[in-house]
Amino acid sequence: MPSPAAKIGAHSRGVFIISVTPFTDDGEIDWPSVDSLVEFYLAKGVHGVTILGMMGEAQKLSDTEQAAFAKHVIGRVAGRVPVVVGVSHAGVDNLVRLSKTAIDAGAAGVMIAPATGLKTEVQVRDYFSTIFNRLGPDIPVCLQDYPLGTSVNFSVPTFLQLVDEDPSLVMFKHEDWPGLRKLQQVRRAYDGEARRRVSILCGNGGLYLPQELRRGADGAMTGFAYPEMLVQVCETFFAGHAEAAEDIFDCYLPLVRHEQQIGVGLAIRKEILRRRGAIASAAVRAPGPRLDRDDAAELDSLLHRLERRLSAAPKPSSGLAA
Amino acid sequence: MPSPAAKIGAHSRGVFIISVTPFTDDGEIDWPSVDSLVEFYLAKGVHGVTILGMMGEAQKLSDTEQAAFAKHVIGRVAGRVPVVVGVSHAGVDNLVRLSKTAIDAGAAGVMIAPATGLKTEVQVRDYFSTIFNRLGPDIPVCLQDYPLGTSVNFSVPTFLQLVDEDPSLVMFKHEDWPGLRKLQQVRRAYDGEARRRVSILCGNGGLYLPQELRRGADGAMTGFAYPEMLVQVCETFFAGHAEAAEDIFDCYLPLVRHEQQIGVGLAIRKEILRRRGAIASAAVRAPGPRLDRDDAAELDSLLHRLERRLSAAPKPSSGLAA
Amino acid sequence: MPSPAAKIGAHSRGVFIISVTPFTDDGEIDWPSVDSLVEFYLAKGVHGVTILGMMGEAQKLSDTEQAAFAKHVIGRVAGRVPVVVGVSHAGVDNLVRLSKTAIDAGAAGVMIAPATGLKTEVQVRDYFSTIFNRLGPDIPVCLQDYPLGTSVNFSVPTFLQLVDEDPSLVMFKHEDWPGLRKLQQVRRAYDGEARRRVSILCGNGGLYLPQELRRGADGAMTGFAYPEMLVQVCETFFAGHAEAAEDIFDCYLPLVRHEQQIGVGLAIRKEILRRRGAIASAAVRAPGPRLDRDDAAELDSLLHRLERRLSAAPKPSSGLAA
Amino acid sequence: MPSPAAKIGAHSRGVFIISVTPFTDDGEIDWPSVDSLVEFYLAKGVHGVTILGMMGEAQKLSDTEQAAFAKHVIGRVAGRVPVVVGVSHAGVDNLVRLSKTAIDAGAAGVMIAPATGLKTEVQVRDYFSTIFNRLGPDIPVCLQDYPLGTSVNFSVPTFLQLVDEDPSLVMFKHEDWPGLRKLQQVRRAYDGEARRRVSILCGNGGLYLPQELRRGADGAMTGFAYPEMLVQVCETFFAGHAEAAEDIFDCYLPLVRHEQQIGVGLAIRKEILRRRGAIASAAVRAPGPRLDRDDAAELDSLLHRLERRLSAAPKPSSGLAA
Repeated sequence: MPSPAAKIGAHSRGVFIISVTPFTDDGEIDWPSVDSLVEFYLAKGVHGVTILGMMGEAQKLSDTEQAAFAKHVIGRVAGRVPVVVGVSHAGVDNLVRLSKTAIDAGAAGVMIAPATGLKTEVQVRDYFSTIFNRLGPDIPVCLQDYPLGTSVNFSVPTFLQLVDEDPSLVMFKHEDWPGLRKLQQVRRAYDGEARRRVSILCGNGGLYLPQELRRGADGAMTGFAYPEMLVQVCETFFAGHAEAAEDIFDCYLPLVRHEQQIGVGLAIRKEILRRRGAIASAAVRAPGPRLDRDDAAELDSLLHRLERRLSAAPKPSSGLAA
Repeated sequence: MPSPAAKIGAHSRGVFIISVTPFTDDGEIDWPSVDSLVEFYLAKGVHGVTILGMMGEAQKLSDTEQAAFAKHVIGRVAGRVPVVVGVSHAGVDNLVRLSKTAIDAGAAGVMIAPATGLKTEVQVRDYFSTIFNRLGPDIPVCLQDYPLGTSVNFSVPTFLQLVDEDPSLVMFKHEDWPGLRKLQQVRRAYDGEARRRVSILCGNGGLYLPQELRRGADGAMTGFAYPEMLVQVCETFFAGHAEAAEDIFDCYLPLVRHEQQIGVGLAIRKEILRRRGAIASAAVRAPGPRLDRDDAAELDSLLHRLERRLSAAPKPSSGLAA
Repeated sequence: MPSPAAKIGAHSRGVFIISVTPFTDDGEIDWPSVDSLVEFYLAKGVHGVTILGMMGEAQKLSDTEQAAFAKHVIGRVAGRVPVVVGVSHAGVDNLVRLSKTAIDAGAAGVMIAPATGLKTEVQVRDYFSTIFNRLGPDIPVCLQDYPLGTSVNFSVPTFLQLVDEDPSLVMFKHEDWPGLRKLQQVRRAYDGEARRRVSILCGNGGLYLPQELRRGADGAMTGFAYPEMLVQVCETFFAGHAEAAEDIFDCYLPLVRHEQQIGVGLAIRKEILRRRGAIASAAVRAPGPRLDRDDAAELDSLLHRLERRLSAAPKPSSGLAA
Repeated sequence: MPSPAAKIGAHSRGVFIISVTPFTDDGEIDWPSVDSLVEFYLAKGVHGVTILGMMGEAQKLSDTEQAAFAKHVIGRVAGRVPVVVGVSHAGVDNLVRLSKTAIDAGAAGVMIAPATGLKTEVQVRDYFSTIFNRLGPDIPVCLQDYPLGTSVNFSVPTFLQLVDEDPSLVMFKHEDWPGLRKLQQVRRAYDGEARRRVSILCGNGGLYLPQELRRGADGAMTGFAYPEMLVQVCETFFAGHAEAAEDIFDCYLPLVRHEQQIGVGLAIRKEILRRRGAIASAAVRAPGPRLDRDDAAELDSLLHRLERRLSAAPKPSSGLAA
C-alpha cells in the first residue's frame, strides 16, 4: 500500500505517462499485458502513471472494468511511482464513486475533465465546485483542460478562481491547443504572486513539449509510445540543458506528429507498443481505428527513419537522462 | 415473461413514452417511484415505454444501475406494453452487453443513437453495421436520429441503406430538427416503393407532432409530462380526425414548448410528474438543472393556464380517444 | 434626417422587428418590396426596425449591398421609428466601416454578435472591447447573444463587465436558449443595484415572449411574420394585462413554433409575408431553403387554423393594444 | 494576360503557395508588400499561388478589397505561374461574382470550401451542384476539404460523385485531419478505375507532406513561411528520392509544427515573412492574434535552431531540387 507521500501535489514534476488499456484481439482487458505494460513504462523511467484517460479508452470500459483496472494497475505499480486515475464521467455520482474507489486502492490523485455540454465559464466553475465539494479535501485533483476533446473552453481567470477556492486542485493538465500563452499565464499567476502553486503537466501527445518546458511546465502527462524520450527531454531540460533536450525531442518529432492524429493515432501508439513488446495486441475497442496495410507500411518507414536518426544522433550523456 | 409478439416491429404505432428515471433527493434510484411512474404511464394509455434515453439520464447511471433499472421496469410492466431500452454507449461492447441483458429480461427492442464523434455518413453506416453484426438478427433496433444531442448528422439515403442491409432495424426515432421533410422522405421511400417498411416515431418533445403525423409518422416516442395528450392526439389522428387531434395538441402547446428547453426542460418535466403524483422527487442527477423560485412560479402560471384551457375546451368524445 | 432622440438607449422598449431582406426571384434586392415591407411593418405598429440581422440574410449580401440596403431603409423609415443595423462581420474593419455608414445615414444604433471562433469569455470581452474602442462613444450598440447561431457562449458576469466598461453598450438582444434565467439575472443586476440599466429585447422568434416579459424583458427584437401579434402582446403586457397578453400570444404559438425551425423557418416567414402582400417574392438567397408542395400545404393548414382561432378569440380591447 | 494553358487541371502538380494578405500596421492592404511578397514566392520556386484562402484572411476583407487584391496579384504574377483565388462565401451570389471577376482577370481557377452550416452529405452535394451550375463549365474549381475550419465533413463517395457529375471540379485540396487514408482513397478511385483524374494538393500547413506524397498527393497547397522547403520536398520526391525529400522536410518540421497552431500560427507565419523581407509588417487584421515578447523570443530560438540544422544538413544536390 503506497504511503501518503505518493499523492500528487503542487510540486509534482516529470513524466506521468498516459497509459493505454491493453485488450486482447477479442476486446477483453488483457491482464497479462497490463502487467507487462506497467513494467515497460517503469523501465523507461516514467515518474508517474495516469490511467483511464481518453487515450486509455476509459469511456469504452464498463464501470466495473474501470474499477478493476484501476485496482490492478495500482497494485502492480505498488507505490513505485504515483498513479493518477481518470474519473471523468457524464454523471457526478459515478465520478465520485470511481474517485473514492481509486483513492482507497492507493491512487495518488484523480484526473477530471469538464463534462461535455458545459457552455459558459460560470457553468464550468459551478461544475468543478460541485465536484470538489463532493470529493472532499483528501482527494488531490488534476484538472484536464482539453477543449479539442471536450468542446469546453475556459480562460485563465476561471482556472485561477478554482485554485483559489479549492485546495485539493493541485495539478493542471494543460492541453488546450494552441495554448502556449495560456500555460505561461497560469505559471506566472503563481510564480509572480503570493498565490498557491499548482503543478502543470502537458498533454497533446507532447507535440510542443520543449516550448512548454521553457514556458514553465513541470513536465508531461501524455502517452507517446517512446516514454524514454519524454523522460530524457524532461530530465535533460531540468538539468539545465534546454537545447540538448530539444535536440532529443526533435529526433522523435516526426513520430510524435504521426501519433498525434486524432483517432488513428491511438492505433499507431498501440501498434508501436506491441512491436516493442509492451503489450500483446494492438486492438482498440470499437468504435475505434484499425491500421490497414498502407498504415502499417507507413509506420514501418517512420520507425526505420527514427532508428536511423537515433543511431546517428549523439547519445545524451547518462548524467543528464539517468 | 412477455411473449415474442411484444417485440417492436415495422408496424409499431402509437405513443412510446420516454420515461424519466426517478431519483430520491439524494440522487439514488427511487425504486418505489419507478413502480408508481410505470403505473402512471400505463394509466394514461401509452402504447409502449422507452427507458434509458437521454432524458432518462442514462448517461449518468452506472452500468450496473442501467441493467438493474431495465430489469425492474420490464418486470413491472410485465408485458402489458412493449418496453424499449436505450443502450447508446461510447463503447460497442457495453452497448451490446446491455442490449443482451435487456432482451433477455424481456425488452421489446433497443434504441441506439450514433456515437458522438462520428463525422461522415460512411462512418455512421460503418458504425451501425458493426453494431447490427454484433447484435445479431434477434434484437429489434430503433435508430435514434437526434443531431442536437449527438452532433451526428446523416441524410435519408444513408438511413435507407441501413434499412436495406439490416433486417433488425425496424424503427426510426425521428428527432432531427428541423426535420419534417426528412421524416416524409423516409416514409415515402417505403410507401411508394417495394421496400421494407419501418415504424417512424417522433421525438423532440412532440413539438411538431400534428405536422409529423400528417407527414406519415406512426406516433411519438417522447416524454411530455402529460402522456395522455400524446395518446389522445395520436388516437384521434389515427381515427381520422386530424383537425381535432391538432386542437387537443394546441391546448398543451405552451407547455410542450416550455418543457422543450434543453437542460432545464427535464427539471420541469420531473417537477410536473412529481406534482401529478407519478414520482416522489423531481431530483435530477448532477450535473443537472434545478428549478429555482422563479422557475417554479412560472410553472405555476403555465399549469394554471393549461387547466383553464382544458376546462374550457370541448372534451374529445370517448369514441375518438378510447 | 432623424433627430438624435431617435437613438436606441437603455430605456428602449417594445417591438423592434427583425426585417427580412426582400429579393426578386432572381436573387436581386427587390427595392419596391423593401419599401412595401417597411410600410407593412410600420402599419402593424412596430416600435423599431432592425435590418441586416441573420434572418435578414446579411451574410449573403455584398458589403456594397449591405450599405445600400441600410441607407435605403433608413431613408424610407424617415425617422418614424428607430432603425438598428446589424453589422456583425468576421473582420472588425468591415464591422466598423458599416457601423459608421449606418450611423451617418441616420441609424439609431448597431447590433453586433460575437464573431464565430471566439472560445473563452476573456476572448469575448477582448473582442467587444476592441470594437467599442474602434466605434467610439457615439454609436449605441445592441449586443446580440445568440449561441445557437454563433457557437459563442458567455455568462452574465462577462456581459455585466462589458456594460460597466463600455457606456455605448445600451441594449441586450437576448436569445440564448434556454435563457429565461439568464435574462432575469441581467435584469436584476441593474434593477437591484446602482448599476447602469440596459434595454433587454428578446429574439428566438419570440417563442418564449410572455415568459420573457414576465421576467423583465423590455420587448422583442425578432421577426415573426405577424408583427401585430408581437406589438399587441407587448402593449397589452405593459398595460398591466399579463394574462391577456399571453392569451393573444398563445393564439399564434403554433405558427411561432412553425416559423422557429432553423433554416426552413425563414422560407416560411417570407412566404407568409408574401401572402400578406408585404413583399413580392418569397425568394431566399442560396444557399437557402425553398418550400416544396408539402411545405406549402402544411402552411395552408396552419394559416387556416390561425384564422379560425383568431375569429373565435375575443378581440383585445383597443384600449390595450392601441 | 495569361494563356488558357495556365488554368489548373487534373494534372496540376507541385506547390501552390497559400499567400498571406499583407497589411500595414493600420490594417490597410499594403500594396507594395503585395508585390514584394509575390516576387518572394516566385523566387522560391512555387508552381502556383493561391490567394484569399482562410490564411489569407479573406473573410476579413470587404468584397471590394477581395476583388482588388485578386486583380492586383494576378496582374503582378503576370502568367508566370497559375493563380487560384479563394471565393468561399456565405452567399452563393457573392461567390459567383468573385469567381467571374477572378477568372476575367486571368485566374487559373477558384477554390471553394463548403459553407459552414451544411450538415449532411446530401446537403454538401446539393451545395456544390448549385455552385457548379452557376459557375458554368469554364471555371476550374479546387474543392477545399477542411473540416477543422468549416465544421463540414464529407466522405469519399460524396466527393467522387461530385467529380463524376461536374467536369469543372479538377482539384482536391485535401486538409481533412487526420486524413491520410481519405487522400489515398480518392487517389485510388481514379488511378485504379476508368474514372476522371483530379489533382490532389495538401494543406494543413504541410504537417504530413511526406506521407501525403507517398500516398499519392500531387503536391502542396499550403502556406509555410519557407516555401522553398515545400518546393524542394516536392521536387525531390517527384525525382524519385522519397527518403531525401523527407530528410529535407524533417529539418523544418519543428517550425512547420509551430506555424500549425490555429490562430497564432498566422501571426508567426507573417512575422517570419517579415523577417525574411517578404512583407513590411506582420500585422494581422482584428480579430486576430499578435505575438508578444515571449512568442517572439520563442520564435527566435526556433529560427536559430533551424539555421543550425540547415547549415549542418547535407545540401540536396541541385539536380534534385532544381
